[in-house]
Amino acid sequence: METVNVIKIGGNIIDDDVKLASFLQSFANVPGKKILIHGGGKLATRLADKMGVQQQMVDGRRITDAETLKIVTMVYAGAINKNMVAQLQMNGCNAIGLTGADGNLILAHKRQHATIDYGYVGDIDQVNTALLHSLLGQNLAVVAAPITHDKKGTLLNTNADTIAQEIATALSAHYHVSLIYSFEKNGVLLDVNDENSVIPKLTPVYYAELKAAERIFAGMLPKLDNAFAALQKGVGKVIIGKAETLHQLISGEAGTTLLYE
Amino acid sequence: METVNVIKIGGNIIDDDVKLASFLQSFANVPGKKILIHGGGKLATRLADKMGVQQQMVDGRRITDAETLKIVTMVYAGAINKNMVAQLQMNGCNAIGLTGADGNLILAHKRQHATIDYGYVGDIDQVNTALLHSLLGQNLAVVAAPITHDKKGTLLNTNADTIAQEIATALSAHYHVSLIYSFEKNGVLLDVNDENSVIPKLTPVYYAELKAAERIFAGMLPKLDNAFAALQKGVGKVIIGKAETLHQLISGEAGTTLLYE
Repeated sequence: METVNVIKIGGNIIDDDVKLASFLQSFANVPGKKILIHGGGKLATRLADKMGVQQQMVDGRRITDAETLKIVTMVYAGAINKNMVAQLQMNGCNAIGLTGADGNLILAHKRQHATIDYGYVGDIDQVNTALLHSLLGQNLAVVAAPITHDKKGTLLNTNADTIAQEIATALSAHYHVSLIYSFEKNGVLLDVNDENSVIPKLTPVYYAELKAAERIFAGMLPKLDNAFAALQKGVGKVIIGKAETLHQLISGEAGTTLLYE
Repeated sequence: METVNVIKIGGNIIDDDVKLASFLQSFANVPGKKILIHGGGKLATRLADKMGVQQQMVDGRRITDAETLKIVTMVYAGAINKNMVAQLQMNGCNAIGLTGADGNLILAHKRQHATIDYGYVGDIDQVNTALLHSLLGQNLAVVAAPITHDKKGTLLNTNADTIAQEIATALSAHYHVSLIYSFEKNGVLLDVNDENSVIPKLTPVYYAELKAAERIFAGMLPKLDNAFAALQKGVGKVIIGKAETLHQLISGEAGTTLLYE
């Protein structure tokens, strides 16, 4: 089976033009089939402020009301996605930027919750692997924005980590998939204050031990739980680490590699 | 040769949610291969006003400065394009929304002008017909936003009429192409104040006569000159008429059909 690198780039990098340009150059040089999933960064919040759209928070979570959905659609699918695609083209990488609505790439439904109305937030039902297969086969690098749709005419704001995981899982039937979460930290750290305490390799057994001993930073737990779930569903490996070291992450020389063994 | 309908939808329809929904339903039901090119409408101007971005005009023409480029990218490639795609999906049409940067669909260069700096405005160099051919072959309806790129990392604001014409011309080597300009009028009118004065058929000879007699509304002349140029370059026919009558335009029962004969 051929390899596909499914790479998620975190919000902090997106907010930094210099770091983003450097990351995109690295991404453009990753050989073979590849998919980039980007988050939103702070641009949507800044635009909402400028436009006087109040951000509603419920239990510490942002609610996507109709006005916020318009803003994130403009910022994620418009500004961020298209500027990334243009920069990748400049770097010789033939990229195509899509939301989940495009080619019915990611079908989702509005999140149902007993007590909180998250608004226009999507939980994923299905990834169109045939479309990805066809685009990757034409040597196109797919750049996915964190916007999905419900096939009833509504766009939905969707977590980029989850999109990366669902795409990686869906492709694992046809490809050897590496799922790379690139962000501002060196990897999964034994000591959250020490960037040199990267755990190079994490297995389910070792993860359970560290978790029981409360040695993993709480903020990392949902990402890691999701990552191990992806491995269980067929993703070959998950790599977590610094965006600036993308090529070393892929080669296993940097970051934390999660393996199901 | 197979037929492709290349359909441009004008700004006035885009600003009217009800008319737009109805138009998209009609477009979804057009059989066979099809491409939709949309303009911008007034949403970009409204957003610029809200954000306090001054619109520069030189000799009556809007200048796309850096801030305006950000706005049109958000509005055209984000808000308008993605909402259209989501509505087409709802209507059972598998649409994919692209800018000229996506898959290097439309390569352009920044407009050079002796006296006016138009800013980030693109004049088209090349259309990627191989990509269109591949997407149309997968029964995808391509929805193109009026944004192109220069392969140097810069997005460019580009006239939607021109994009429609360039796509139609580029495809005419491989397909029988009908280019349809759908807007708020019934067609090319003999009397601009009488919607019933539609000219059903316009040939170069008849057009030259009407032009010489100053019987064509001045605002239509650039569109018509471009349309005849497209016919000369291989486009099968150009149809101009009311968006609400899309199917009748295609079948020749409404609007003005331009033929090179």
